[in-house]
Amino acid sequence: MTGTSLAVVGGDERRARVVWSHLVEPVVDPSRSTPGLTVTGLIARDGALRPLEGLASGSLTLAGAQARLAGLDLAAHLRALDRLGIRVLIPGDEEWPLGLDDLPTPPHCLYVRGPFHQSALHEDGLAVVGARACTPYGSQVARNMAAHLTDRGRVVISGGAFGIDAAAHEGALSAEGPTVAVLACGLDRFYPQANAGLFRRILDDGALVSELPPGCAPYRQRFLARNRLIAALGVGTVVVEASLRSGSLSTAGRAFELGRHVAMVPGPVTSAASAGCHEWLRTKPVSLVTDGRDVLDLMGQLGVDAMDPRRLRSTVLDLITDDDEALYSAVPVRDGADVTALQRASGLSAQDTTKGLGRLQALGVVEHCAGRWRKAALT
Amino acid sequence: MTGTSLAVVGGDERRARVVWSHLVEPVVDPSRSTPGLTVTGLIARDGALRPLEGLASGSLTLAGAQARLAGLDLAAHLRALDRLGIRVLIPGDEEWPLGLDDLPTPPHCLYVRGPFHQSALHEDGLAVVGARACTPYGSQVARNMAAHLTDRGRVVISGGAFGIDAAAHEGALSAEGPTVAVLACGLDRFYPQANAGLFRRILDDGALVSELPPGCAPYRQRFLARNRLIAALGVGTVVVEASLRSGSLSTAGRAFELGRHVAMVPGPVTSAASAGCHEWLRTKPVSLVTDGRDVLDLMGQLGVDAMDPRRLRSTVLDLITDDDEALYSAVPVRDGADVTALQRASGLSAQDTTKGLGRLQALGVVEHCAGRWRKAALT
Repeated sequence: MTGTSLAVVGGDERRARVVWSHLVEPVVDPSRSTPGLTVTGLIARDGALRPLEGLASGSLTLAGAQARLAGLDLAAHLRALDRLGIRVLIPGDEEWPLGLDDLPTPPHCLYVRGPFHQSALHEDGLAVVGARACTPYGSQVARNMAAHLTDRGRVVISGGAFGIDAAAHEGALSAEGPTVAVLACGLDRFYPQANAGLFRRILDDGALVSELPPGCAPYRQRFLARNRLIAALGVGTVVVEASLRSGSLSTAGRAFELGRHVAMVPGPVTSAASAGCHEWLRTKPVSLVTDGRDVLDLMGQLGVDAMDPRRLRSTVLDLITDDDEALYSAVPVRDGADVTALQRASGLSAQDTTKGLGRLQALGVVEHCAGRWRKAALT
Repeated sequence: MTGTSLAVVGGDERRARVVWSHLVEPVVDPSRSTPGLTVTGLIARDGALRPLEGLASGSLTLAGAQARLAGLDLAAHLRALDRLGIRVLIPGDEEWPLGLDDLPTPPHCLYVRGPFHQSALHEDGLAVVGARACTPYGSQVARNMAAHLTDRGRVVISGGAFGIDAAAHEGALSAEGPTVAVLACGLDRFYPQANAGLFRRILDDGALVSELPPGCAPYRQRFLARNRLIAALGVGTVVVEASLRSGSLSTAGRAFELGRHVAMVPGPVTSAASAGCHEWLRTKPVSLVTDGRDVLDLMGQLGVDAMDPRRLRSTVLDLITDDDEALYSAVPVRDGADVTALQRASGLSAQDTTKGLGRLQALGVVEHCAGRWRKAALT
């Protein structure tokens, strides 16, 4: 059976990536080393074919992947993609949305259903996300904002969920523009089922996208993994309503890590549905927006400048000096480093290192814990 | 008659300042040179007595002031102060609130009615202000915030107006603490009259204060002048609700210029009563707060550090480098200067000057107009 699928791959990079999408999901647990990270690294370096051959020959071992490969009927899956009208994008395709290349763990491939050409997202895509348990206020704001952005030629990206996501898609549709829903399941199903009518209307001009092949069901880890795609696809992310523990804040965190603009809509301070937005506005370097016009003011020029993903980072780093940027680069993400180590790594004087760390801390991009400095966790 | 009042002054600095408070108001039009600015400068340098003698002898000429001095019955005014239970504070008094010394045009003296000892404001005072035309939401937030702050030993300063001001005072009273109302008229009257009951309750433990002597009526310029006192008296200013043109934003602007913390409460983006707060949160380096706890988080340590007014400025300037601080100092307030002039004044290279100006602009503290740079207007 293993041989069967490999024969169908026939040396084709796209088919090899489809196979990998059945075998290992890029992000299982982003906080530690996982098969997903390993495979992503191998594919980034060598392409998808060689690691697949390694897996088939046994020179590469990944828990469960061999068995999944053995059980995979690739030909049947490719027929299903055809039948469902799902195309498969891979890096290098004209339609490949470049924003995904910024991800530490990019998807093996992107499944797309619907006419909207994904490459436009990197210039025009704006994520509008928020709580499922939204209020009428949040729903109204999301809808109006999405309509305004769509009216001005932007493409609203969201997650197709109840609440703010659905309101954002509805707003885009009301302005008769395309909108993109990024799902946490295969594109053979509409989840949540109650939004099936919405998804069908999205398919007229927009698209449903996913990194998961048909047949995959949505569950918690997949929602979190999906959020990184929403964050990466556009030039910025707006959170309309989010309680303190809303999953939409994870999208904002991913967007921030990717150097995308992150903006939040405030609400009544008495509303728990806005508490997460207020918390971020209070404590992190994110922007406050009140409507679509504010979003365009904030992100309007960004699409133009965004062809080089590295320039996106300037949205945060514009505020800091070259020395501070060097210092920021020297600060580790996880274990932290003390001032002496950072001084050595940055080449700055002790005093400049200390003062620079203070400035970076004030901007919320580094944090100090038990004598050690690390990049601030943003989720 | 001139001689009469001067005889009553009898070489007493306090009485001389009372006289000045009848003659010239420190701020008439803060955007251009005025008698108020001139006299304030003279008094700051020489004390109040010598300029008063100059005015009486004719060696100092100020439009209208001679005539007002001639018409002044100081002895009657001093009796009225006694009768109304109004005391007069001047710089150097133990009770003098030090925050007023930060003002470019401090009051000649401070009239105080009520038992609250004003010197405590410089450590514990927090201004809570906002629109007269507030919503029930804003009123509730102001009331709860003021109660919380009062409960934690802070003293709420506000303007005694309808709307947010009244709610803030009410909240402080509900927590059984003192609160200070800074009026834009003499303390012989309660303005607005409908708040007379509130003012009487404030007088139990708190105070009414004004720089204007009894007999002065409130009008627009005096409200604007009064706002600078509110801003200067405390360690920070919170704006609860403000439309785009609310006068409470002038208080925030003054507070910002004085290096005080400035915070704003968000509200529904659909509420015009919060639009001014949102505008400031979007475009200026002010903090978002949702309740009294947030205010204390933000300003809690500030009282302790605030004994030296110069240290307060660090709240903004902490974020910028020494070079940028030098550059900021070199940027003029009014007419603006071009890059070459700023480079010369700051001693930086052309490139560092340009980059530094970009950083200061991103922080919202300088602005660029017609090829010239100036400090950002904050009102």
